[in-house]
Amino acid sequence: MSIPEQKFKIAIFGGSGYGGSELLRILLFHPYVEIVLVTAKEHASKSVGSVHRNLLGMTDLIFEESPADFSTLENIDLAFFALPHGQALNLIPQLPLNVKAIDLSGDFRLNDAVVFEQFYNLEHTAAELQKKFVYGLTETNREAIKTASYIANPGCFATATLLAMAPMIKSGLTTGKIIVDAKTGSSGSGAKSAANTHHPQRVNSFYAYKPFMHQHLPEIEQHLGEIGDFQNHLVFMTHSLPVARGIFVTCYLETTANMTNEDLLNLYRHFYEDSFFIRFVDGSPDINWVKTTNFCDISVHSNGNHVVIFSAIDNLVKGAAGQAVQNMNLMFGLNEKTGLIFSGSNP
Amino acid sequence: MSIPEQKFKIAIFGGSGYGGSELLRILLFHPYVEIVLVTAKEHASKSVGSVHRNLLGMTDLIFEESPADFSTLENIDLAFFALPHGQALNLIPQLPLNVKAIDLSGDFRLNDAVVFEQFYNLEHTAAELQKKFVYGLTETNREAIKTASYIANPGCFATATLLAMAPMIKSGLTTGKIIVDAKTGSSGSGAKSAANTHHPQRVNSFYAYKPFMHQHLPEIEQHLGEIGDFQNHLVFMTHSLPVARGIFVTCYLETTANMTNEDLLNLYRHFYEDSFFIRFVDGSPDINWVKTTNFCDISVHSNGNHVVIFSAIDNLVKGAAGQAVQNMNLMFGLNEKTGLIFSGSNP
Amino acid sequence: MSIPEQKFKIAIFGGSGYGGSELLRILLFHPYVEIVLVTAKEHASKSVGSVHRNLLGMTDLIFEESPADFSTLENIDLAFFALPHGQALNLIPQLPLNVKAIDLSGDFRLNDAVVFEQFYNLEHTAAELQKKFVYGLTETNREAIKTASYIANPGCFATATLLAMAPMIKSGLTTGKIIVDAKTGSSGSGAKSAANTHHPQRVNSFYAYKPFMHQHLPEIEQHLGEIGDFQNHLVFMTHSLPVARGIFVTCYLETTANMTNEDLLNLYRHFYEDSFFIRFVDGSPDINWVKTTNFCDISVHSNGNHVVIFSAIDNLVKGAAGQAVQNMNLMFGLNEKTGLIFSGSNP
Amino acid sequence: MSIPEQKFKIAIFGGSGYGGSELLRILLFHPYVEIVLVTAKEHASKSVGSVHRNLLGMTDLIFEESPADFSTLENIDLAFFALPHGQALNLIPQLPLNVKAIDLSGDFRLNDAVVFEQFYNLEHTAAELQKKFVYGLTETNREAIKTASYIANPGCFATATLLAMAPMIKSGLTTGKIIVDAKTGSSGSGAKSAANTHHPQRVNSFYAYKPFMHQHLPEIEQHLGEIGDFQNHLVFMTHSLPVARGIFVTCYLETTANMTNEDLLNLYRHFYEDSFFIRFVDGSPDINWVKTTNFCDISVHSNGNHVVIFSAIDNLVKGAAGQAVQNMNLMFGLNEKTGLIFSGSNP
Repeated sequence: MSIPEQKFKIAIFGGSGYGGSELLRILLFHPYVEIVLVTAKEHASKSVGSVHRNLLGMTDLIFEESPADFSTLENIDLAFFALPHGQALNLIPQLPLNVKAIDLSGDFRLNDAVVFEQFYNLEHTAAELQKKFVYGLTETNREAIKTASYIANPGCFATATLLAMAPMIKSGLTTGKIIVDAKTGSSGSGAKSAANTHHPQRVNSFYAYKPFMHQHLPEIEQHLGEIGDFQNHLVFMTHSLPVARGIFVTCYLETTANMTNEDLLNLYRHFYEDSFFIRFVDGSPDINWVKTTNFCDISVHSNGNHVVIFSAIDNLVKGAAGQAVQNMNLMFGLNEKTGLIFSGSNP
Repeated sequence: MSIPEQKFKIAIFGGSGYGGSELLRILLFHPYVEIVLVTAKEHASKSVGSVHRNLLGMTDLIFEESPADFSTLENIDLAFFALPHGQALNLIPQLPLNVKAIDLSGDFRLNDAVVFEQFYNLEHTAAELQKKFVYGLTETNREAIKTASYIANPGCFATATLLAMAPMIKSGLTTGKIIVDAKTGSSGSGAKSAANTHHPQRVNSFYAYKPFMHQHLPEIEQHLGEIGDFQNHLVFMTHSLPVARGIFVTCYLETTANMTNEDLLNLYRHFYEDSFFIRFVDGSPDINWVKTTNFCDISVHSNGNHVVIFSAIDNLVKGAAGQAVQNMNLMFGLNEKTGLIFSGSNP
Repeated sequence: MSIPEQKFKIAIFGGSGYGGSELLRILLFHPYVEIVLVTAKEHASKSVGSVHRNLLGMTDLIFEESPADFSTLENIDLAFFALPHGQALNLIPQLPLNVKAIDLSGDFRLNDAVVFEQFYNLEHTAAELQKKFVYGLTETNREAIKTASYIANPGCFATATLLAMAPMIKSGLTTGKIIVDAKTGSSGSGAKSAANTHHPQRVNSFYAYKPFMHQHLPEIEQHLGEIGDFQNHLVFMTHSLPVARGIFVTCYLETTANMTNEDLLNLYRHFYEDSFFIRFVDGSPDINWVKTTNFCDISVHSNGNHVVIFSAIDNLVKGAAGQAVQNMNLMFGLNEKTGLIFSGSNP
Repeated sequence: MSIPEQKFKIAIFGGSGYGGSELLRILLFHPYVEIVLVTAKEHASKSVGSVHRNLLGMTDLIFEESPADFSTLENIDLAFFALPHGQALNLIPQLPLNVKAIDLSGDFRLNDAVVFEQFYNLEHTAAELQKKFVYGLTETNREAIKTASYIANPGCFATATLLAMAPMIKSGLTTGKIIVDAKTGSSGSGAKSAANTHHPQRVNSFYAYKPFMHQHLPEIEQHLGEIGDFQNHLVFMTHSLPVARGIFVTCYLETTANMTNEDLLNLYRHFYEDSFFIRFVDGSPDINWVKTTNFCDISVHSNGNHVVIFSAIDNLVKGAAGQAVQNMNLMFGLNEKTGLIFSGSNP
């Protein structure tokens, strides 16, 4: 890695949601980039600091409308898309060819257009472009990301689940069905208020949703097939936590032979030996210790040939904006940690 | 009080909001009433238990549309109105004359139509009917309530504030300006989701709103003037708590002469000697101990001639549905506690 | 059932914890019992209402020390034991023979003393008495409970898990390993403050604990073996939620043949046709809708031969004090619902 | 300000509490300091990252016992004391003379030993040293801090209150009594679990504590007297919020003449024109927008001659560790913002 001679020029499409908000928080302090455009349709012409009041005093940026003509974006090095599902699909094909793109939505994660349409209820209108997209789970796809022009940034649940399971699937030691019991904080539902995030209902609640049907399931299965010989039946179940931030995933696996905790830990440490953002903990990870950070905390436990892997991430950082910046760093030839070495707080 | 020969027939207009929800929870277990009609425009024809899932298995009631012709309501003894501000104003004039009414909105709390229009941004279209309304702060207005046909049920903030201040104002010992610093849980904003009750924003928040302008201020001033010789300047400030339920009020008063804690407590105990739902506590009340109940917990503290009164209520019970039932009991000649002697839980 | 001529006399050992607190809240309003003794070592001589401030004004009961001589308890009909593990073990053998007992601790739940000592780190000193205990999962053990003198009240996790799984195990349609992913609120840790319930740490947290080792596992396995031909491997994993109350359990099962949602629901409805406190819901149960109540809300979902069962209870009511009273009712020949038909609140 | 040739050497006494935890989080990323010693009696020899798991992977620092002989500390440039009240009192006198000190406890905030003993229940044993301490409210005391060797870092409530009131008191426009209604999150009670921070009790609670008696009152009065001609009666009332972090203060003042909102805002903007960490907001500040940061958000509102000032800070950063580092920067001749320009997150 070398220090760039001048800052990279960045655009953010969809700056008013939580993904955009966290992209702004991270990129405003990134030493080698400059944000030259941030769009937000309903907040156009408002200052960023008046909408994201955590950033008040930190920036003079103003939200803009999305440009009508994308050919004006030639001076941009990379554009982030943090828009609702179905919008990047139409916008990224309009980008000048020299502009790299990282899409935080689900639009370009699935290679199979039929599966995409089944889970997102949208027709996939950019099947050719899809082939140029690299799946942006940084820790398992670094080399492909470094040379990619287009990144499909993983879903938050998919990130936590794949990081928990990748070493086991890669090892070929897994047999039988796999159960993933996943839990997310309320910011996963986005910045717009809705019945399921109405505070009086949510604050004392815990419930499951979309049984057997969550749209992150196919991207998990697809990428596990890229990591190893994945033939297992996978049951993936999502639940809602009464906290603002964090995803916790409990993965239940079976191994072909008995493994000790130490066997497991060695396997995982080896797999992630170059991955600064993967931390191993005793007992259990806790979303409290990764909140607002790019870390994924993992612990492993075995009981004969039954294995449980716990992982915890911040859904908006490692599960969205942080991992997107990690991927951007690699695409720009920077150290992947640049601008991402910050910790959460205690408490 | 005597046990009625047959159950009183009750209608609830606006059964899908939190006020309606709590009216249902209380009235379904009331020994002497029967709910014969409960309306909810957008939930019409759904079962009550499918909307308020706490009541699943407890009732076969079905939400109905509001009847087009109110003359069909003659068989009803009393109607509760738990509708948004501005609706009861038009509906109560249509009730048959034999039907009593308790309005939980602000429509009939203010005697002065000009003040009403200033604080509610609505024209008062029922000025004559207004004169027949009795303000339903049970502990200070029992005798008038017993013979009333129409009750304007107090606002939640007003209830907590007035119960904290009534003994002092009645005593004539208060001098100088009065500060009321009031805090409410998120259910005070109603059952519909909105930006200020979006869980990710609300769960770690605390903020003030409507400085100097809350619509409960005039009803507090009006009723204090009915209780005693109230000439003091009152500053009333409302804040939002990150809990679902509860109101806590801190009242800062000055006395004409030094009072000890014991003096204060004697004054308050005497004033509320017949009031089961007023409880005195050491130290401070806590919204945790009154949640889901009709109690108002109060503590009093003096420091020379400076006095602070703390009060805590559940905003939806003593601050709305519970007090409404307490008033209904009095209007029916029942013991005011009927159907209201239930406690909250620990924790 | 018949209405008793006089009230049953009740003692509560361990009235200051959350189990005792909820026993008091329920029994104070039970029409056919009278609490004649409630013990609390460190609060002896304090009023119940000053310790459990939710009960202030509801009772004149005073906490007492446990009597030195249990022969004085002959006038009592039934004693509840809501003490830390290991204490009822020594106290219940001292009860006069005419006194029935319900133990809310784990002391008498396990038939196998070796397993008990392994999971509780305590020697079982009352092996003979153990044989007289009936496991108090009301919905599966009603007939035995009716004639029992001693009840081992189920653990909170065990209750939610067993109610979710009982119909499937009874049906004999389950094959393969079973995964139970369970989550509990902080009141499950008891009324004493500790590091894992320190508010600043807990309020934004979610984590797992005791992987493969929770003490409720053996009681679940033991009772499943009583319900049906249970040979399956069971993985049971417990997690901590940042709410005060509630348990949510997700059970992953495999069936010997494909079942539709309707098949499942018919099976469950039939199994629980006489069980008022089991409610079936669409989508997912939510701890918010059962909080402070004796209900267990269940939903069932199938995907071919993979089945997931969700259940939600209040850990202190159906998971402890409420179920204990339900069992007491049966032991006294009362309707099991007596004193337990109350709903939670919305929100 | 100039960039130092070598990093300043820092010691932290009391690194395991929340103040120490946040000092570590900030100083580990400060460009011009190096932590050479961090003590924590009960965690001695444990790694910092195993105790403060947010810092796992960020540092190799190990907690140490406090040195028996302070003469060994000569190589240190500055020591922070983040210990319980009463300990710095005995330790700071033992420091070598060349070592600067910043005390986060209340030991050296009060000039009057009698008042100290009344509010802290401790004898003040270092009266001579007291005279060398400068009160570290950065925004009002910058020049004195720059040349000080010893700083008494303000209390968290005192910081929020003084920043809200300083411009008004300095202006001389305030008359009559002043009411300060203050609310704090649970981390203000420290990192050790206790009854008042037991999660099941705290999570749905709001209550007042120490009426008229909080130990921050005298330091507020003392420093207001240094800022202006402060003769007003001050009522200061503290309350507990069910969040982990944040302080919100509502100050009620009366002005000698009517002031408009614009008058107020001009006065405040002028007073804080050189203060980066003071931000002015419309409506109300919210603890959510300052959490984990060194900002103090303020809004001002007038109603004739009645004025309310709202302020919000993070109790552990601007109310403790952040302000301490801001003061350290000034003592070292650095820009006060160094290492402190980070924002909170949304949400």
